Amino acid sequence: MAASGNNDAWQLVRARATEKKYGDQVTPDASSPLSKGRVILNCEHGDPTMFEEYWDVHQDDNVMVTRANEGISYFVKSKMHQRGPWFVSVELDDAVRELHALVGNAVTRDKFIVVGTGSTQIFQAALYALASRNGTSTPVVSEFPCYTGYPQTIKYLQSKLFHWAGDSKTYQPKGDEVFIEVVCSPNNPCGEIREGLLAGRNNNGVLVHDLAYYWPTYTPITMALNNDVMMFTLSKCTGHAGLRIGWAIVKDPQVAKKMVDFIGMNTIGVSRDAQLRAASIIRTVVKGYQSGPLADSIADGMHTFLSQRWPFIRGDVLINAILSRGKLFHWSKAVMENRWGKVRSAVAANRSFSIREPPLPAICTFLGTASSPSSAFIWLKYEEEADCQKILQRNGILARGGPAFGVSAQYARLSLLGREQDVDLLVKRLATLK
Amino acid sequence: MAASGNNDAWQLVRARATEKKYGDQVTPDASSPLSKGRVILNCEHGDPTMFEEYWDVHQDDNVMVTRANEGISYFVKSKMHQRGPWFVSVELDDAVRELHALVGNAVTRDKFIVVGTGSTQIFQAALYALASRNGTSTPVVSEFPCYTGYPQTIKYLQSKLFHWAGDSKTYQPKGDEVFIEVVCSPNNPCGEIREGLLAGRNNNGVLVHDLAYYWPTYTPITMALNNDVMMFTLSKCTGHAGLRIGWAIVKDPQVAKKMVDFIGMNTIGVSRDAQLRAASIIRTVVKGYQSGPLADSIADGMHTFLSQRWPFIRGDVLINAILSRGKLFHWSKAVMENRWGKVRSAVAANRSFSIREPPLPAICTFLGTASSPSSAFIWLKYEEEADCQKILQRNGILARGGPAFGVSAQYARLSLLGREQDVDLLVKRLATLK
Repeated sequence: MAASGNNDAWQLVRARATEKKYGDQVTPDASSPLSKGRVILNCEHGDPTMFEEYWDVHQDDNVMVTRANEGISYFVKSKMHQRGPWFVSVELDDAVRELHALVGNAVTRDKFIVVGTGSTQIFQAALYALASRNGTSTPVVSEFPCYTGYPQTIKYLQSKLFHWAGDSKTYQPKGDEVFIEVVCSPNNPCGEIREGLLAGRNNNGVLVHDLAYYWPTYTPITMALNNDVMMFTLSKCTGHAGLRIGWAIVKDPQVAKKMVDFIGMNTIGVSRDAQLRAASIIRTVVKGYQSGPLADSIADGMHTFLSQRWPFIRGDVLINAILSRGKLFHWSKAVMENRWGKVRSAVAANRSFSIREPPLPAICTFLGTASSPSSAFIWLKYEEEADCQKILQRNGILARGGPAFGVSAQYARLSLLGREQDVDLLVKRLATLK
Repeated sequence: MAASGNNDAWQLVRARATEKKYGDQVTPDASSPLSKGRVILNCEHGDPTMFEEYWDVHQDDNVMVTRANEGISYFVKSKMHQRGPWFVSVELDDAVRELHALVGNAVTRDKFIVVGTGSTQIFQAALYALASRNGTSTPVVSEFPCYTGYPQTIKYLQSKLFHWAGDSKTYQPKGDEVFIEVVCSPNNPCGEIREGLLAGRNNNGVLVHDLAYYWPTYTPITMALNNDVMMFTLSKCTGHAGLRIGWAIVKDPQVAKKMVDFIGMNTIGVSRDAQLRAASIIRTVVKGYQSGPLADSIADGMHTFLSQRWPFIRGDVLINAILSRGKLFHWSKAVMENRWGKVRSAVAANRSFSIREPPLPAICTFLGTASSPSSAFIWLKYEEEADCQKILQRNGILARGGPAFGVSAQYARLSLLGREQDVDLLVKRLATLK
């Protein structure tokens, strides 16, 4: 599940109502304790406005024209799989398979594509499909720190089918009970590559993989994953969060069918306009890699490699060089690496705070070069026993605190997916954090 | 909640996979007991393909052009109401208010517009917002026969917040318990105008009005309704079911906020593309009434009036005359009246079956003339103790049987919202039903 622009953000987005210039620089009420006469930087949610820069340049690469007589029926042209109202457009089904074939991050062959209204809906569909239905509620666990959306989504309707059972590290499966383990990899918030701790190891646990961030943008693609239920979302791939399109790649046809059942009952399918536009945008991304000469790609790879060594010298030059080429992942990887270079320097200068050491570079099978992860979020730790989120607030930065992810308040999550100017302001404030 | 193309239709839509010519004429598997070597007519779900004819003529009246850099953020430009991530685009909020002001079917002043992914999501949001949360599950009732989607939507996730408690006619509120009464008016399946039986009458019941069919197309608009929670859907208004856009007009800001909370947790808002296109289509409908001379409107009204008296002579002439004028509700009312004329004649010839006598004509404040209801569905009764749905199946017509709506199998619901050719075939078969 991609989404971190979730509903917790109520207070924060209220601040946006009085925003002055930029989406993520907000001026809260004068009465707010946050306000000290300066702009508050909202890094609390993962709204992927970073991608605006890319698509502004490429805005004419994908133009959808929709006439009034389209979308009259509930049903889209679907592969059907001879199984019912699949609600998944042929176009999007095909486009998703092409995208994964290009990037090499997931195996789609002999699997079903289930599309949802964002991966938040897909996640609920998976819970519905995998719950045991044997009269007992199915426990759902995930290793802490874990995405705040999991417990929230599991709890809000108080379903008797499943319940939140907390951290995989401390959960003890009881006998032959069925449970669900959600594995987010790279993990939101900390960027860790995960494979799950419990499910499938002499128990009846089933795994759900949330691969929202398993794109070259955020981490080297080291293999095409081949798990039973793999969730992805357009918002963290191309940035089009407003479309509300997520999908799952599902092995078992019965699980896929139950997921579609859920989506049928929850929203009678997924907006046909959103599906067709998502398909079209994905095709544009894929086409960007088909049209350019191979040399382009290799040159991009070299730049990426070089940028790791001289992030400040090479970063902006590199990004601008790639921006016009129509190779989304090369551009977004370069942007994220550049941002991480700045963030690491800023945090290194401050001994009170730390971030996870970057793992050793790995060869990204897609980019063809070695690179380190460049996570969508900064997972910041305050070295003393104190509330990291509050310290950040005092410094004009809105973050999501560790407790929301099931861990100590010494931690806080900061989004790195905002606009460049906001990241620059964030870096400036991180360097002088106190 | 408009939707009748819901998930029950699994088997039926499977049949569609092998469809030969038309969306609603399907040839099922040769092994199916339904098959007798002729085309099966699917009238089971309420897919509003009727509207294709209108929008085919007017396809260029509304053309949306969307560039690649649109929809990057989770958030749409919203009125916010200083309350948070409202997830409702300014454009759609405004368009919905304009539409209701034009038609005069609902009061929007001093109320909130909550938009959902179809009215199915809106319905769940209303249940979530109105559930008592006092530790007991809130009962939800509706007068039988009632829309099959209510119990299905209430039951599928087995929420502890609310449960299905059946027919309003037999439900006895216990003491000061909070309960929810859903009132569908005109009612799906039977077309009856309803006001609710229980809620608000010396008890703690709250009303939710499902006004999916309270448009001039289906019933004379006699007043602008002013209830606390009123649900509408684009699918039964303009026919664009594939967009998945429904909305509620909500009086209490706290209820509206909780509904938005639900939509935030369920799907992190509603597809921005779907919202903007819905707004644009609604504006096109409104504009159709602003641009033509008043005389047009009066002439249309006269034609409608005449068509009631000579449906066979005047029907097609009338419809074709209106089709090009860009007055959606005049056209759709004429189509529905024409269809009902044919249906009534067909059923009148068959003493084994009956349909509800049409109520006396009423003045439609919008059309400016007297007219009878022309419901979206035929609510057919077999006069003997037998299964009406099965008899229809034997005659090559798929219908939804009475038990799905909480009443006797002597009843069945047939959609009248399909394409003209299918309605003609339906009428032919109804005339010779046995």
